[in-house]
Amino acid sequence: MSLNPIDRVAEIVTIGDELLSGETVDTNSSYLDGLLERWGWIVTRHSTVPDSVPAIAEAIQEAARRASLVISSGGLGPTEDDLTLEGLGRALGCPLVLHRPTLDRIRLRFEKRGTPMTPNNERQARVPAVGEVLLNEAGTAPAFRAPLLGADVYVLPGVPGEVRWLAENILRARLDRGAPIVHRRTLKLIGFGESRLEDMIQSVRDAHAARVVFGYRAQAAEVHIKLAVRGTDTTPIEPAEARDRLDRVEEDLEQLLGEAIFGKDEDEIAGVLGGALMKAGSSVATAESCTGGLIAAMLTDVPGSSAYYLGGYVTYSNESKSELLGVPAATILQHGAVSDETARAMAEGVRARFQCDWGIGVTGIAGPGGGTPEKPVGTVNLAIAGRGSIWSRRLSLFGDRSAIRLSTARIALDQLRRQLLR
Amino acid sequence: MSLNPIDRVAEIVTIGDELLSGETVDTNSSYLDGLLERWGWIVTRHSTVPDSVPAIAEAIQEAARRASLVISSGGLGPTEDDLTLEGLGRALGCPLVLHRPTLDRIRLRFEKRGTPMTPNNERQARVPAVGEVLLNEAGTAPAFRAPLLGADVYVLPGVPGEVRWLAENILRARLDRGAPIVHRRTLKLIGFGESRLEDMIQSVRDAHAARVVFGYRAQAAEVHIKLAVRGTDTTPIEPAEARDRLDRVEEDLEQLLGEAIFGKDEDEIAGVLGGALMKAGSSVATAESCTGGLIAAMLTDVPGSSAYYLGGYVTYSNESKSELLGVPAATILQHGAVSDETARAMAEGVRARFQCDWGIGVTGIAGPGGGTPEKPVGTVNLAIAGRGSIWSRRLSLFGDRSAIRLSTARIALDQLRRQLLR
Repeated sequence: MSLNPIDRVAEIVTIGDELLSGETVDTNSSYLDGLLERWGWIVTRHSTVPDSVPAIAEAIQEAARRASLVISSGGLGPTEDDLTLEGLGRALGCPLVLHRPTLDRIRLRFEKRGTPMTPNNERQARVPAVGEVLLNEAGTAPAFRAPLLGADVYVLPGVPGEVRWLAENILRARLDRGAPIVHRRTLKLIGFGESRLEDMIQSVRDAHAARVVFGYRAQAAEVHIKLAVRGTDTTPIEPAEARDRLDRVEEDLEQLLGEAIFGKDEDEIAGVLGGALMKAGSSVATAESCTGGLIAAMLTDVPGSSAYYLGGYVTYSNESKSELLGVPAATILQHGAVSDETARAMAEGVRARFQCDWGIGVTGIAGPGGGTPEKPVGTVNLAIAGRGSIWSRRLSLFGDRSAIRLSTARIALDQLRRQLLR
Repeated sequence: MSLNPIDRVAEIVTIGDELLSGETVDTNSSYLDGLLERWGWIVTRHSTVPDSVPAIAEAIQEAARRASLVISSGGLGPTEDDLTLEGLGRALGCPLVLHRPTLDRIRLRFEKRGTPMTPNNERQARVPAVGEVLLNEAGTAPAFRAPLLGADVYVLPGVPGEVRWLAENILRARLDRGAPIVHRRTLKLIGFGESRLEDMIQSVRDAHAARVVFGYRAQAAEVHIKLAVRGTDTTPIEPAEARDRLDRVEEDLEQLLGEAIFGKDEDEIAGVLGGALMKAGSSVATAESCTGGLIAAMLTDVPGSSAYYLGGYVTYSNESKSELLGVPAATILQHGAVSDETARAMAEGVRARFQCDWGIGVTGIAGPGGGTPEKPVGTVNLAIAGRGSIWSRRLSLFGDRSAIRLSTARIALDQLRRQLLR
């Protein structure tokens, strides 16, 4: 494997008017970044240009001058503003020619569908005379590779599903060098403030600062500790050595934070909780007011959740809290719909009605209206009933309606996860 | 107002290692694109570069050479890898100097919070000697503007909330030229296939093709018809003329598609339905199986939804469908949990229990497991009870679990909207 730095530098060029008008957020670049990093590349620039032959040709040429790998996405469709192959042809200084096997493939696809093929669809089979067509089984648009100014230029369609198919099925085998330059791990927690967490783990960070880079990301009650072991393009770090460094930080953080870490990397709280419920053979039901079904929706977004999630109530009105969940009307009258007492009665009420092991009860003020000086927007009461007792807590959350709802749901799921550990 | 094309061209430069590693999708560029387009600019390129002084300086210089407006975001924070002002200083060829009012503001902010200020926070007050500091009331990082190679360069932080605050409060007054070059309108429908819709509206499209550009976007049961009236940078189209052209297309499409169009531009189905329920003084409750609370969560994400949404059930298990919603066990036994009969009993059961005007009942197979040859994954039964009768339909949906759930929820909300129109 060559460790020549120039062999490690990649650029991404995305192409399309819709990427420059506010209509479409470019997610392909970020997806390709992540893959390329794991495959041992450093991405040093993204460029986005409109559907214009000179703009495409210029951007690809500039990128090929700076990097040894250029991946573009977009502009390979059948319509007249799909100009990437023409742009690449201009960059290469060579004409487009008809690629017969691609034309046959497109024709076959249309025959199978029983729809007539238009001259525009034929355009998709015209490719630069220099380079190779890459079979794209996820769509009609062919992908293409050409050598330019010492770089390898890969031209992919813009449809995210096709980018993913081509990356996994074509690019991986050609581009995965097996040795990432940056090795990452993310540990995930719920219910800490970012700055409080930073303070708490300062000692661990200091102990490892020379060998592992720490970062933080916080959003809607979730905090991620982002760890990175960075080699350089000339002196990469062995995967085993990187894993060892990350393991040691993880161990130290686990010792310090214990059960507060709910997962890592791709883990999501609903999936982690689902695994824990499955393992314990336990079942759960939900009673939601301010989250309005969000906790249920997060739980049931996990495939197989019917094994432990029985169902729930969304009780937005006071009457439904009393009549359906059995919260005593006197409790709501005396303590209010947003109160510890109401949340506890909701949790126990839903647990009893579904005859399951655990009940989650949530009531609060998600805003923007409904706040009072005593119970401002963001006031949430959360209760978890199970094992013969009820745990409860009042939360004071920040953000807009969606952030307060999402924070509440995450904290509720995480608290049940913690209960299961006891 | 100058119509010199060079006065209309903008580029966006985003800065940060996390934007090139797969960790963070760049949403600021797309947000700024949309604003700039409405303000009368054409964005011709995005570039994303790492936290490196030479890379930042080079990208800003290149952009300033091509465009008359450059907006950067990212790299203004307090940490050592926040290097945008240094990069801008290098591009300008001038040193950084301490900006006393900014330092005082930062100091005050820390005093208010009661946390000590670090030397890194002082770094945020060091700005290029040429240019002006722009007050950023949404954060500690100052924004900055400098003239470079005939272009105006605006340097913003990377935090999306701060970008939004600065755009609305500082950039709008300076950059809004009042005359967009492209005028857009999006009409939104639910439940049509993209290609079927294209066929249906071909005649309208043909009639307006010379004056309005048509586009389509489809995702999870929702189809958007995207209309654009494009001037050029030298010959913009008067807003009144553009509005008139778009109005005429909209009228023709409304005549053809009628109530199928649920909204336009920023409209979301849950909000549109909420408005219709509010107007009718009607209330609704939900009984969900395969969507698992998603319909409830979408309804209650709309502020003020407690005026018409009373609550609902998530009945994942057969027992809960019978015991809580009153679906006869014999119905489930005879027709199955995923059946027209069960959906209808769920809709009427939840309507009766919440004593409200409308009840939505949904049961289906979201996958990936649970499908049979007779009822494959994507089979969904939907029913809406109200006004003394029950409407129902079987859906056959495509996609993964999340797409099937989202499609189901959107179609359910849209069908209730249509019922309300009768």
